[in-house]
Amino acid sequence: MRPSERLAAYEAKPERLLIGLMSGTSADAVTAAAVRVRGGMPEVGVAYIGHRQHPLPADMAGVVRSPEHVSSADLTRLNVALGEVFAQAALALLHDLGLCREAVDAVASHGQTLVHLPAKNATLQVGEPSVIAERTGILTVAEFRYRDMAAGGQGAPLVPLADYALFRSDSVNRAVQNLGGIANVTWLPAGGSLADVIAFDTGPGNMAIDGVVQLGSQFHFSMDQDGRFGASGPVNEKALGWLLEHEYFRRSPPKTVGREEFGDEYAGMLLTLLKGHGKRYRDIVPTVTALTAASIAHAYRTHLPAMPDEVIVGGGGTQNPTLMRMLRERLPECTIRTHEDFGIPDVAKEALAFCLLANETLLGRPGNVPSATGAKRAVVLGKVVFP
Amino acid sequence: MRPSERLAAYEAKPERLLIGLMSGTSADAVTAAAVRVRGGMPEVGVAYIGHRQHPLPADMAGVVRSPEHVSSADLTRLNVALGEVFAQAALALLHDLGLCREAVDAVASHGQTLVHLPAKNATLQVGEPSVIAERTGILTVAEFRYRDMAAGGQGAPLVPLADYALFRSDSVNRAVQNLGGIANVTWLPAGGSLADVIAFDTGPGNMAIDGVVQLGSQFHFSMDQDGRFGASGPVNEKALGWLLEHEYFRRSPPKTVGREEFGDEYAGMLLTLLKGHGKRYRDIVPTVTALTAASIAHAYRTHLPAMPDEVIVGGGGTQNPTLMRMLRERLPECTIRTHEDFGIPDVAKEALAFCLLANETLLGRPGNVPSATGAKRAVVLGKVVFP
Repeated sequence: MRPSERLAAYEAKPERLLIGLMSGTSADAVTAAAVRVRGGMPEVGVAYIGHRQHPLPADMAGVVRSPEHVSSADLTRLNVALGEVFAQAALALLHDLGLCREAVDAVASHGQTLVHLPAKNATLQVGEPSVIAERTGILTVAEFRYRDMAAGGQGAPLVPLADYALFRSDSVNRAVQNLGGIANVTWLPAGGSLADVIAFDTGPGNMAIDGVVQLGSQFHFSMDQDGRFGASGPVNEKALGWLLEHEYFRRSPPKTVGREEFGDEYAGMLLTLLKGHGKRYRDIVPTVTALTAASIAHAYRTHLPAMPDEVIVGGGGTQNPTLMRMLRERLPECTIRTHEDFGIPDVAKEALAFCLLANETLLGRPGNVPSATGAKRAVVLGKVVFP
Repeated sequence: MRPSERLAAYEAKPERLLIGLMSGTSADAVTAAAVRVRGGMPEVGVAYIGHRQHPLPADMAGVVRSPEHVSSADLTRLNVALGEVFAQAALALLHDLGLCREAVDAVASHGQTLVHLPAKNATLQVGEPSVIAERTGILTVAEFRYRDMAAGGQGAPLVPLADYALFRSDSVNRAVQNLGGIANVTWLPAGGSLADVIAFDTGPGNMAIDGVVQLGSQFHFSMDQDGRFGASGPVNEKALGWLLEHEYFRRSPPKTVGREEFGDEYAGMLLTLLKGHGKRYRDIVPTVTALTAASIAHAYRTHLPAMPDEVIVGGGGTQNPTLMRMLRERLPECTIRTHEDFGIPDVAKEALAFCLLANETLLGRPGNVPSATGAKRAVVLGKVVFP
């Protein structure tokens, strides 16, 4: 099939089946999600089908978590090796769901962000889409962030379009709060248009918590399971106040942040400070957990035009009851809801969001929200690889 | 315009205007070439319009020449910065030719190869195509090598398709010999089909000569201008014989080679050996020049089914009269011709070749020649970025 015919066939379908592939900053697994999409923005219809968490081999996860030490040759291999993992994740999901690959209209691969330098309008996404297209035989759209940055944007966040499609309301102000490695919010004012959307990274999500637990336990623990360390002692309000003085929290949106600011280096700094106080690493987990909750509440009060009536939380942080309790305590005026309340499994949400972005790309429409990324204009995102 | 419409309009045109962008392993400049293309393979028509050599900033060229020392953050910035240079090169060429960007149907960007690991089926191409598409507003096809490697190929050489289109003959055996940083040959037997084409890297082109001159002169000279050092003394036949014992020359095609084998490390090794003999760096340039010529002649006699009647030489090495004399001496049975004899400026040839590859991609046809790259199958190359 010629590329023009393939894209015309895509457009002509009333309903399309897409597979979204996503690996977040925490690099713990690749999420593959299948979704049916009807039409396009703004009246796009989305029906979730199923998803799969596909393990990321430990050696690759290690490189992804410490990209500053990777050589260009290792990076070259990692890009291809991750492409293979993404392809396997897509094919395994199809197998799980009993779907044949011919039924899939497109794969939307976010890939893995390895380096993100918004101030330089530069990013590095790995997980080679040519490998995904070759292994799956499916039309592939990938590497979404580069184009927004070429248009002067910060390359993130890119979920606002999907948040708008899935969660906007005519009657209540909503904030969609993702608690991934990095935490980010999408503000959806009641009855607002896409131009009214505000979105930015609020700061660390699980990244600083995970970093302190991992480094502190010498990698005996990978995370604060069930928020137990976080609930094991008091929050040091003085330390918290000092941590909230980080320059990032004051800066006005659009803004984006990454492992560079709140990654292992940041966690290492916190642990070094602790040592000087004669404390164990666990003693700071309540305070670092409170930092995520407090920086979110601070961001709403400082950078949103009004407080949300409803906060729809998502991301791995929702599995941390301590973090969720702290968030409720610091946002007493908001109703906290989940993605599941809207029929979307939380873990599949970002993969699903990139399906909506790929759908817009294949229809020739922009996917970035300039008010969220700071781009000079709305642009068609991503690169298309034909099977 | 929707992507399907844009591609249908591309297909429907009897003649298309493409801009090719290429930066070779020597990283001395970006070549932009404009070409009109009629139809597609195998009966594709090509009319060269014009080209431009666009300077590559010295700091970028330095990183490209020593990618092993680049950090992942520097690489992230380099990819975007090179994308800007490629875009500028395209726009400057349009200005030179008095063409408006709306007249251009597609940009074909080879980009810059930073790392090439054929044994690992991995390559790293930089010069972000999203930046090119955003700055030029033109449909962009780029990053051709990944897909061939995903299909099990070595990702190189990719010029054979263009060589076949441009130079095949019903009556004589031809070899198209590129003398770039790396030297590579395309074998076009008289009356042969695309399946009869053999192509592989013969070994170092100018890379080892340049490396010895640059390192030896402590970068006072960037190359052996007019082959003067190469002609300044005798070839050490004993040393040449030893250099020709390199494992690469014996290996059967398909095979590909890069800076990893014949780059600065190799030049440094030669210079270290020289020191032990109390010689100056210039003393080895005749022998290193002869290595390029002799390895080509050796490759023809060893790895081609017959000797070519005509050798069509191209690449920067054609500007080195010493290298050309040595090549004639070692191939006395062949007529040496140039690309200019066929109406194609030598320096524009590879950029032009990638226009033909992009044309095939946009028509949904394969661009690799499996007998040349070793790929398991012919695949549609590259990634498409919509303006």
